[in-house]
Amino acid sequence: MRAAHTHVESRRSRPATAWQVARLGARDSVPAAGDWIPASVPGAVQLDWARARGLPDPYYGSNVRAYGGLEDSYWLYRTQIPRVAHRSNERLVFACAGVDYECEVRIGGTHALSHRGIYTPFEIDVSLVPPGTALEVLLFPAPKRHALPADRSQASHVTKPAVSYGWDWHPRLIPLGLCEQAGFEVRPRVHLRHVDFAYTLSEDLSSAELRVSVESSDPAARHTWRLSDPQGGVAAEGRGPGGRLENPRLWWTHDHGGPALYTLEVTLAGEDTVRRKVGFRRVRLVMYPGQWDADNSMPKSRDKPPVTFELNGRRIFAKGSNWVCPDIFHGRVDAGTYRPLLELARGAHFNLLRCWGGAPAPREEFFEMCDEMGLLVWQEFPLACNLYPDDPAYLETLERESRALIRRVRQHPCLGLWVGGNELFNSWSRMTDQSLPLRLLNRNCYDLDPLTPFLPTSPIEGLGHGDYRFRNRGLDAFEIFQRASCNGYPEFGCPGASPVEYLRTFIPPEELWPPREGTSWEVHHGLRGWEGDANSWLFLNTLEDYFGPSASLEQMVSRSTWLQVEGYRSLFEEARRQQPRCSMALSWCYNEPWPSAANNSIVNWPARPKPSYGAVQAACRPVLASARIPRFQWRAGETFTAELWMLNDSAEALPGGTLTAELVLGAGRSRLSQWTFPGLAPQENLRGPAVSMELPGAAAAEFVLELSVSPRADWSSTYRLSLRAAGLPPLPK
Amino acid sequence: MRAAHTHVESRRSRPATAWQVARLGARDSVPAAGDWIPASVPGAVQLDWARARGLPDPYYGSNVRAYGGLEDSYWLYRTQIPRVAHRSNERLVFACAGVDYECEVRIGGTHALSHRGIYTPFEIDVSLVPPGTALEVLLFPAPKRHALPADRSQASHVTKPAVSYGWDWHPRLIPLGLCEQAGFEVRPRVHLRHVDFAYTLSEDLSSAELRVSVESSDPAARHTWRLSDPQGGVAAEGRGPGGRLENPRLWWTHDHGGPALYTLEVTLAGEDTVRRKVGFRRVRLVMYPGQWDADNSMPKSRDKPPVTFELNGRRIFAKGSNWVCPDIFHGRVDAGTYRPLLELARGAHFNLLRCWGGAPAPREEFFEMCDEMGLLVWQEFPLACNLYPDDPAYLETLERESRALIRRVRQHPCLGLWVGGNELFNSWSRMTDQSLPLRLLNRNCYDLDPLTPFLPTSPIEGLGHGDYRFRNRGLDAFEIFQRASCNGYPEFGCPGASPVEYLRTFIPPEELWPPREGTSWEVHHGLRGWEGDANSWLFLNTLEDYFGPSASLEQMVSRSTWLQVEGYRSLFEEARRQQPRCSMALSWCYNEPWPSAANNSIVNWPARPKPSYGAVQAACRPVLASARIPRFQWRAGETFTAELWMLNDSAEALPGGTLTAELVLGAGRSRLSQWTFPGLAPQENLRGPAVSMELPGAAAAEFVLELSVSPRADWSSTYRLSLRAAGLPPLPK
Repeated sequence: MRAAHTHVESRRSRPATAWQVARLGARDSVPAAGDWIPASVPGAVQLDWARARGLPDPYYGSNVRAYGGLEDSYWLYRTQIPRVAHRSNERLVFACAGVDYECEVRIGGTHALSHRGIYTPFEIDVSLVPPGTALEVLLFPAPKRHALPADRSQASHVTKPAVSYGWDWHPRLIPLGLCEQAGFEVRPRVHLRHVDFAYTLSEDLSSAELRVSVESSDPAARHTWRLSDPQGGVAAEGRGPGGRLENPRLWWTHDHGGPALYTLEVTLAGEDTVRRKVGFRRVRLVMYPGQWDADNSMPKSRDKPPVTFELNGRRIFAKGSNWVCPDIFHGRVDAGTYRPLLELARGAHFNLLRCWGGAPAPREEFFEMCDEMGLLVWQEFPLACNLYPDDPAYLETLERESRALIRRVRQHPCLGLWVGGNELFNSWSRMTDQSLPLRLLNRNCYDLDPLTPFLPTSPIEGLGHGDYRFRNRGLDAFEIFQRASCNGYPEFGCPGASPVEYLRTFIPPEELWPPREGTSWEVHHGLRGWEGDANSWLFLNTLEDYFGPSASLEQMVSRSTWLQVEGYRSLFEEARRQQPRCSMALSWCYNEPWPSAANNSIVNWPARPKPSYGAVQAACRPVLASARIPRFQWRAGETFTAELWMLNDSAEALPGGTLTAELVLGAGRSRLSQWTFPGLAPQENLRGPAVSMELPGAAAAEFVLELSVSPRADWSSTYRLSLRAAGLPPLPK
Repeated sequence: MRAAHTHVESRRSRPATAWQVARLGARDSVPAAGDWIPASVPGAVQLDWARARGLPDPYYGSNVRAYGGLEDSYWLYRTQIPRVAHRSNERLVFACAGVDYECEVRIGGTHALSHRGIYTPFEIDVSLVPPGTALEVLLFPAPKRHALPADRSQASHVTKPAVSYGWDWHPRLIPLGLCEQAGFEVRPRVHLRHVDFAYTLSEDLSSAELRVSVESSDPAARHTWRLSDPQGGVAAEGRGPGGRLENPRLWWTHDHGGPALYTLEVTLAGEDTVRRKVGFRRVRLVMYPGQWDADNSMPKSRDKPPVTFELNGRRIFAKGSNWVCPDIFHGRVDAGTYRPLLELARGAHFNLLRCWGGAPAPREEFFEMCDEMGLLVWQEFPLACNLYPDDPAYLETLERESRALIRRVRQHPCLGLWVGGNELFNSWSRMTDQSLPLRLLNRNCYDLDPLTPFLPTSPIEGLGHGDYRFRNRGLDAFEIFQRASCNGYPEFGCPGASPVEYLRTFIPPEELWPPREGTSWEVHHGLRGWEGDANSWLFLNTLEDYFGPSASLEQMVSRSTWLQVEGYRSLFEEARRQQPRCSMALSWCYNEPWPSAANNSIVNWPARPKPSYGAVQAACRPVLASARIPRFQWRAGETFTAELWMLNDSAEALPGGTLTAELVLGAGRSRLSQWTFPGLAPQENLRGPAVSMELPGAAAAEFVLELSVSPRADWSSTYRLSLRAAGLPPLPK
């Protein structure tokens, strides 16, 4: 029997479940007594195996190579039906929230159920099975569509995340196992299997029609429910599915009003109760002002699709980043993994995270924290950079897994957007609007969550992904974005080396300097990371082009960090200056699954902010002074120019002030401009004066542009720019 | 009880049904005996009313104005349950294939059923109703979302076609009535309600899995079926739904192999039989060769959606036009209306017709003829140029009507594409990818006909609509398309006046010359036709710009025709020269619902080819010599240039030949080039030499470019171009 993931609280007990696992020589092998090792659930067989067999820490040096063969084995989990004192009116259930990736469940040696997928839960009533009976889970090897190439394309027929098959910032290591909660539960005879909360807000947001429905062990049983407001008072209650709430307090992102959460308590037949937080918001994708009139030449194509988020009737600028798996092993990710990362995200003034389709969709705890912290979530289905086929077997799995995921996540007010997957309409994937998997996902989202926006993939028309290099085709990050004119930037990045003290934690001392191929630098993505570019992600060539050879690890890291810091600052600020045509800036990427030597991330694994985090945080302040600076590096004697702006993303009208622009070069300080700007309307940017100054011929390596705002010093901004050394040849084009 | 449209043949009888109709003063009015007038079914109340009350022919002069108020009345149809000698094991059923637009059915004065929609059939078993009992249909006034403006936006909440609310080539006249078959039928007790034929071709097209399913009055009854091949031999047969066919003969368009049709005969319980033609084809939308690599700059957007038709594995160039309602009154359209129009379409070498969403979807006979003639059909849902709302009531109607339409039309091999509607992603409609009606249509097509391509609207990205003027923004049609770079042109047009002898049939003699506003010229769209342009569609201003004032009706029509003829020729040929990037050329529009004074149509109502038909026919020949001519009008003494091409749309490799280009001016003839072109690969265009010649200073008004092909004279082409009169001022920009 299959049933849904749900959060059940009262009158239930969960007997401790001890698991063991054995690696099998073949599917039908019978493990010897000595083959059994302790298993952690949720977890991954690789972690159990490493613990039992003393494999080295895969995150250090090149140790990950020792984990190579494990993905191709069958693994057998076992436990026993527990002996519990359950009364005759109670049930004992084996409940499993999902499996990575395919398995058979046997009870007492008899086949009970076959299962495929991380997102689809199942449960088995074992009340009548004698205690002590073996419950086994035969886990299949990692699915592979073909033997070679050994890359993400092996996962193009499954809902298993493609990332673990190898990515430019993720090693090849394919976790397998009971990656979700799996164990026994004693429940009342009449119990809830799933609680579904849905609502429709009136057009003016002044009332909500509620629908509280349940799935239970007894379809005839009646349920009651109570909705408590954020202060704990009873806001609404009812018997059965229908209800209504007047003047709901709305859920907003933390930067636009804060996340009001209600508590819903549902009780079935007076016996079984579920309690969860819910919230009320309306999210839409809308056109930006003036978009409908942007072009009327003939032959006339369509107007570009809307990509501006509107939350509760207010257009917002989506600031944030791409969330990737916070650990190679999804099975060991928990609330403790999520919380510091999400607090840092909120601290960076982000209001949206894109849960990228290459990674596993997060657990419930992630969405609960985003609900609570006021962070919107763009959730993708598990498709990325592959040609997923119009194949009945794949469509059947995707149907089941996507419906399970939608049913679970749609309950969260933080959910802002469903997306079919990553970069599917691009040449490296080759799916199209006609691909049946994407039409299926549209269908399922329409059926199950029609009021949350849906896009088949990112990018769609008007959105742009990239660049991911500080310098490309003779342009730096500043120039690339100033020439771009997208409606949103859901991916863009500047790579940076990790801090020296962090590098020392996972790169063996003897390999630290200089970085060489074939060492841990390469394993951890510093060299030959990105298939198209052997220099990624350290880009020693770019550093040398800008600054000449680096003399030490410290100097190299410092230079790389400089590019990442100022690159990200320029990119986020430029995207904001392009409002209202542009309404979205999501950097690639936020975090990482293990220690990277260099990466576009701004937070190292597990939750260590890199220096670029601070620059992004500054660039995402609701209000700030900003300079459009044509490029990063300048030559002595050249005329420096910049354009001054005041950026206001907040919904508040703000008083004016004075912006003083000064150029600091060594001990010298020159005032470029003093701009008295008027009051800022809500969500309005102001374009100020252009400034310029001839840079002295002196041989300083850098200079600083300081924008000081009075009286609001917290709106001030600083840019550290490069002066090209005299002896270097011209920058290559 | 609702049931589906189907084609039932045997063991059934249809007692003659005499209908009357009365116009009601109010919804609840009871007609007096003298109020009843004879009604034709299928038909329209306006036609019945005109016949009974002696209204003048609405197609002549300005008579259509006399039909104004009828749309706002309630109308009551009535007939009687017939007295038929049906045996006890037979049923008497009232069956109605759809109503325009909303009604209540009463039997013996008692409400039996409420209905809304043209596409959803219904039936009522009246076996137990005493003969002679009244069956009444209370028809509601034309639905209007608002009182003003009185235009297409009044229909933005219904599935009733928007076109009859007024369009630039369609008068305001909103038909109402029993527009589909509606009457009584004696059936066997166990009878078929719907037969559904579906199949899945193997990837290599060498076999088909068949599914023959039925809906019937008795779910327990078993059905048998037999599939006969085009020669009449039994190809497959079975009991129940499953079956298989090896080596199916494929259905092709007439220009790519011809439409092989099988005959399917289904018999239920030995009592009731349905027979219909079916065919086997695979249609896909695919990327054009090289499209995936067209752009790789960053930020990278999506690659454009595929719009190239692939039929049975072969990419084809879609040549055709936009099919509009062939009569204002859909209710009187029948096979006799369709056949001459479709024969002309095939005769023009068209292989695809776009059934535009503003008009009613055609009847079964249309699709049967397209099956038989090898014409692909692009079928749109009834949405056009409006903001159809995310409204539950509208969504419910659209759900029902769209499912009925899909269920009916998906059975036809000629069906090539489902499209949500016309120009919905443009500023004059303002629907978007997030609009629930379009997500619903995508969902329903996925559920019911997943293997036929679906697009939400036209244009989408890569497709272009327009221009519709010979001259716009200082460019002529030649120049507009030569500067365009779309992947397909699903709408483009050149307007032309109707022939003089045709104009005389509907414009009163006293109004014929000169055309004036407020006369039949305006009523029939010659003046003030298109909201944005008071000159449409005669464009007397453009004629005067090119040629100076016209002295007579004949001269004006001759000039207008010249522009339409050479404009269409240049547009179709240019679209073909843009292969493979471009794969579609569908002119706006093919036909018309009533006599137009001027229009982009190439066939006048009801089926009279205009001179432009011949030019389009020539430009759509599978193989032809073609010249890319920079513009239509030249000045004496100027250097004329052109580029020579050989175009081959056919799937055949063809031998080479010689193309001789000559310029004929008055009595003079100059050879510009003799190009010996090599053999033509299948579906390959060849670009030949550029030619040029200084035009003499003589005062001829025109010259001709002749491309003569040897040995294939049937590939030769001729272009008649204009020489600007010396006394005219320069063409305005």
